Amino acid sequence: MHLTPPAGTIAVIFTSRRTAADDAGYAAAAEAMEKLAREQPGYAGIVSARGTDGLGITISYWENEATAIAWRDHAEHEAIRERGRALWYEDYGVVVADVSRAYAWTRD
Amino acid sequence: MHLTPPAGTIAVIFTSRRTAADDAGYAAAAEAMEKLAREQPGYAGIVSARGTDGLGITISYWENEATAIAWRDHAEHEAIRERGRALWYEDYGVVVADVSRAYAWTRD
Repeated sequence: MHLTPPAGTIAVIFTSRRTAADDAGYAAAAEAMEKLAREQPGYAGIVSARGTDGLGITISYWENEATAIAWRDHAEHEAIRERGRALWYEDYGVVVADVSRAYAWTRD
Repeated sequence: MHLTPPAGTIAVIFTSRRTAADDAGYAAAAEAMEKLAREQPGYAGIVSARGTDGLGITISYWENEATAIAWRDHAEHEAIRERGRALWYEDYGVVVADVSRAYAWTRD
């Protein structure tokens, strides 16, 4: 359930606040982008949550810097980001970080 | 709005799924822990979202490894984690990562 990527994995932390515009278009694009990300070389997982206050957090994991950058520069991904800035997002932030350790806990 | 921590900041990514137990107790504890975190040396910000599917993501940022570990080992934080495992969490994961770069975008 919870991702425990090895040291050296790249975490791309995307936080965003949505506009009120084009909910259906946004949902379809978000789903399409997640599907496309999963097909990319170096893809190592994704987790996402959007709270009732409208703040969304999506973290995608990549095996290394090269594959993280390839995803950032993917033509379809670039096109959808452009659309996001035009329509869907009030504001957003991106933080890129190198994983040093990870663990998970599950109830017995 | 969106955090853009400098390179070298530590990101502690906490993902969790809640049990159905003790919602009021959980909410009070989560609020108290966020307040306590803000008072710690090296605190560099926190973002949090819980989706309608029950997956929660909280990322706390720390100026360096020493202050991230001091918060992990803080006695009140340890006690509340214990309570979380007993009552509030079905499962959770922690990923620790070193920030390499960050930026934010805002609609004009």
